[in-house]
Amino acid sequence: CHFELSNKYHIIKMIIFTFVNGGNVLVWYTEGSHWINMKPLLEKLVDGGHRVTVLVPSASLFMNSSEPSRFHYERVESSLSIEVMEKFMEEFLHFSIYEMEHMGYVQMYLRFMELFRINLKFALGNLDGVVKSEEVMMKLKRGNFDVLLADPIMPGSELVADILGIPLVYSVRFTMAHHFERYCGQVPAPPSFVPGAMSKLTDRMDFWERVWNFIFYAVQDVVLNHIYWKTVDSYYSAVRGKPTSACELMGKADIWLIRTYWDFDFPRPLLPNFKYVGGIHCKPAKPLPKDIEEFVQSSGDAGIVIFTLGSFIRNITTEKGNMIASALAQIPQKVLWKYSGQAPETLGPNTKIFNWIPQNDLLGHPKTRAFVTHGGSNGIYEAIYHGVPMVGIPMFADQPHNLIHMKAKGVAVIDAINTVINDKSYKENAMRLSSIHHDKPLSPLDEGVFWIEFAIRNNGAKHLRVQAHELTWYQYHCLDVFAFLLALILTIVFIFIKACSFCLRKCCGRKTKTKSEKNEM
Amino acid sequence: CHFELSNKYHIIKMIIFTFVNGGNVLVWYTEGSHWINMKPLLEKLVDGGHRVTVLVPSASLFMNSSEPSRFHYERVESSLSIEVMEKFMEEFLHFSIYEMEHMGYVQMYLRFMELFRINLKFALGNLDGVVKSEEVMMKLKRGNFDVLLADPIMPGSELVADILGIPLVYSVRFTMAHHFERYCGQVPAPPSFVPGAMSKLTDRMDFWERVWNFIFYAVQDVVLNHIYWKTVDSYYSAVRGKPTSACELMGKADIWLIRTYWDFDFPRPLLPNFKYVGGIHCKPAKPLPKDIEEFVQSSGDAGIVIFTLGSFIRNITTEKGNMIASALAQIPQKVLWKYSGQAPETLGPNTKIFNWIPQNDLLGHPKTRAFVTHGGSNGIYEAIYHGVPMVGIPMFADQPHNLIHMKAKGVAVIDAINTVINDKSYKENAMRLSSIHHDKPLSPLDEGVFWIEFAIRNNGAKHLRVQAHELTWYQYHCLDVFAFLLALILTIVFIFIKACSFCLRKCCGRKTKTKSEKNEM
Repeated sequence: CHFELSNKYHIIKMIIFTFVNGGNVLVWYTEGSHWINMKPLLEKLVDGGHRVTVLVPSASLFMNSSEPSRFHYERVESSLSIEVMEKFMEEFLHFSIYEMEHMGYVQMYLRFMELFRINLKFALGNLDGVVKSEEVMMKLKRGNFDVLLADPIMPGSELVADILGIPLVYSVRFTMAHHFERYCGQVPAPPSFVPGAMSKLTDRMDFWERVWNFIFYAVQDVVLNHIYWKTVDSYYSAVRGKPTSACELMGKADIWLIRTYWDFDFPRPLLPNFKYVGGIHCKPAKPLPKDIEEFVQSSGDAGIVIFTLGSFIRNITTEKGNMIASALAQIPQKVLWKYSGQAPETLGPNTKIFNWIPQNDLLGHPKTRAFVTHGGSNGIYEAIYHGVPMVGIPMFADQPHNLIHMKAKGVAVIDAINTVINDKSYKENAMRLSSIHHDKPLSPLDEGVFWIEFAIRNNGAKHLRVQAHELTWYQYHCLDVFAFLLALILTIVFIFIKACSFCLRKCCGRKTKTKSEKNEM
Repeated sequence: CHFELSNKYHIIKMIIFTFVNGGNVLVWYTEGSHWINMKPLLEKLVDGGHRVTVLVPSASLFMNSSEPSRFHYERVESSLSIEVMEKFMEEFLHFSIYEMEHMGYVQMYLRFMELFRINLKFALGNLDGVVKSEEVMMKLKRGNFDVLLADPIMPGSELVADILGIPLVYSVRFTMAHHFERYCGQVPAPPSFVPGAMSKLTDRMDFWERVWNFIFYAVQDVVLNHIYWKTVDSYYSAVRGKPTSACELMGKADIWLIRTYWDFDFPRPLLPNFKYVGGIHCKPAKPLPKDIEEFVQSSGDAGIVIFTLGSFIRNITTEKGNMIASALAQIPQKVLWKYSGQAPETLGPNTKIFNWIPQNDLLGHPKTRAFVTHGGSNGIYEAIYHGVPMVGIPMFADQPHNLIHMKAKGVAVIDAINTVINDKSYKENAMRLSSIHHDKPLSPLDEGVFWIEFAIRNNGAKHLRVQAHELTWYQYHCLDVFAFLLALILTIVFIFIKACSFCLRKCCGRKTKTKSEKNEM
């Protein structure tokens, strides 16, 4: 009974870890769909016997710490009011949905950068509530946390993980032009076949698209360096009392859970500590409420269409509403429209407006023919999970980006519902993506939980971190090696030429002499 | 009961696939430890209800098709005799173990290249037996295979997979300087932190090591292009009757199962279709035979040391044997030496020679203190699995490379047994690696089988293949984009300078005029 010791040792450690001890997980605050996506992971961690503590700023719009919950919420006093945050959110939505349409490209970009700057200021306002509060920092230090889980869209988590000296696990959808992943995570992304996130390109690029992609990367890198890193670096440096690079601290993250997978994203190089967990929130459909089920069944063979513009858009302009409603009125399917604005005048008899719909249960219903969506990644993943083709009406943020992925994979059209329902290829492609999504050795949720627990068990995951983090940019690209080899070659060539010309002069000198000697003769 | 349809659909498909149908797996021939490593995967596939057909050349040294087995062996008539192969193998071993020591670097390299050329000629001789035999090709075409599983060390599998039009799954330890993986698999490998396989470097390189690594990559690429691709390309082109690039065909592989993991290898960029399955052959220890268990128990607290030089080395020179034996005689541990040569004169009373040892069961024994090994990757993985520190006596092939990895990770020394036994850090590091090895969401064997089955179920894995395969080398490196942008910038600068000089001339011209006008006044 002595064999298998190391194996047994490991199993015993895991049993102790899971049942007796549990881990102590600290969760960084985030917002909107980022928080929606984080929750199932935390629920599963609690199921596994871990204690989960979530930081919530007093000015949070989406994290409801008063709800009964299995997580412990730690309130952070933000220097901002909730009203200011709401006003900014409205301003941002107004810009994204209405203003942008009437702006030139440069004007739009400048306005976006302005909003980005304000957003960063607010994010640092929230961060004040953590790192500048002695009380909160004391609580965190005494909390004996095993790991910090964070979406890096809100700055500060890497600073706090570093101060507390605990492993850091990121959960990331993506960042603009994959800037964080490339610069701080050290993931290679050759612009020739990796389209920058938000560039609206696919991985099949012609020459001009590659030129555009290259410029897109370069511009984002310059801009983010100017308006993001400078501000965050000086904030971090002030807190730490010494020059601190935020990007370098991000590079110390043990695991990056990326909320996508090859059913959604285009294949690209990755690193051993990048784990793809797209669809982490997806689950099987449950039976529908009676009234909705009756409406669905009334659709007969034509089936139903689900229409939602996501959690941010509560109402649209009357004009837009009428246009959409009259378009929906023309299809033979029954339509379930999630909408809390006023019902448009042109609403057809086939369309029913709901304040709330059980979206996932509807997507899993066999009568569902298409999903009309704004293109949020959570909704798209539910459609992939259930194999439903999509019609995209992108509104803002990453939505155009997401829908371009779905279009490239042949499961979505943008703004054309009949095509998706009548052209069989969309359904077939949707089923194929669904198959790719399900045909994984591990569910995304299990994979996410596994790597968080791994970081707890092994005090991080240093063995997955490439040495690229320790190199300067010119070392990474071998520019010093190039320079050395070039210098070497040039020296050899120089010596060779000098030697040749010396020999030549000797020979020719003698020849000339010989000639003149001949002449003298 | 209508919900979860797509999920159910998938599960039903998987059940049908596994129990009713099974896959039809064709396995390419390979040799030595490559074959030892392939077998557990095939066993597990048979367990899963798949039919496994293995090609075996008549001149194979290691694949024994006459053994009773659960695989179907398909004999391939090689144009070579088994005697020629044995003679070559002896020649190669003699070169690796004895000749190399007395050779200069260039002489050694030239001799190695000569042997490499002969090896390739023999490999193509085996390939003749497949692609030039109408009978075998007809059998393969009629075999309705779902997938071809191959170690690319033997050329030809990619050609046959392409002719049969079936998905291709590779199982790879590594190739020289990662040449196949980089060139044909499109894996990025920046020479600044990814040491070329066989370069004897780690991922922590100083300036001179990076220069060496850079040159190492460049030299291997030039040499392999010259002596490998030219020959194989012309062979493939002759078979296909049109210009065929073997590397391009390799690039069509659906999945690359890489027989290493981050417990053994240094972290490096990878691609979605590269799956790391190092230790695929490892399994828990079984009880020892009675006589061996008694000898092991007699070691008391000092414990035992296991000594083997692998399956290739059957005997060593008398001189070397005496040297090793007298070194082993000086340690307090009992030593089990796997050796089939004559017992050395200096053999100590603590050392016992065995013709065969249950290596894995011994490594899993709690009395085992160290593993003295030639550094074959199979043995190293068994030691990692059981958490046993190692002493390396590298003989040839990838053995020095493997041991350098283990040395860098602090679990092995080379040629110094006492250090490993007395310095606690080696055992601790070995236990840490063992923990990393076991702490995976999926065992390497299950992962390997999963992706082979995936390729069968989904007719390959096109969704994991990066678009880099479709680009030319200058497109991949954005050289066309650079050239364009450079031309653009130069044009702008040129126009700007021309415009400036034009304006300047105008202004200065007028001034000069004004001056002369003044003079005239």
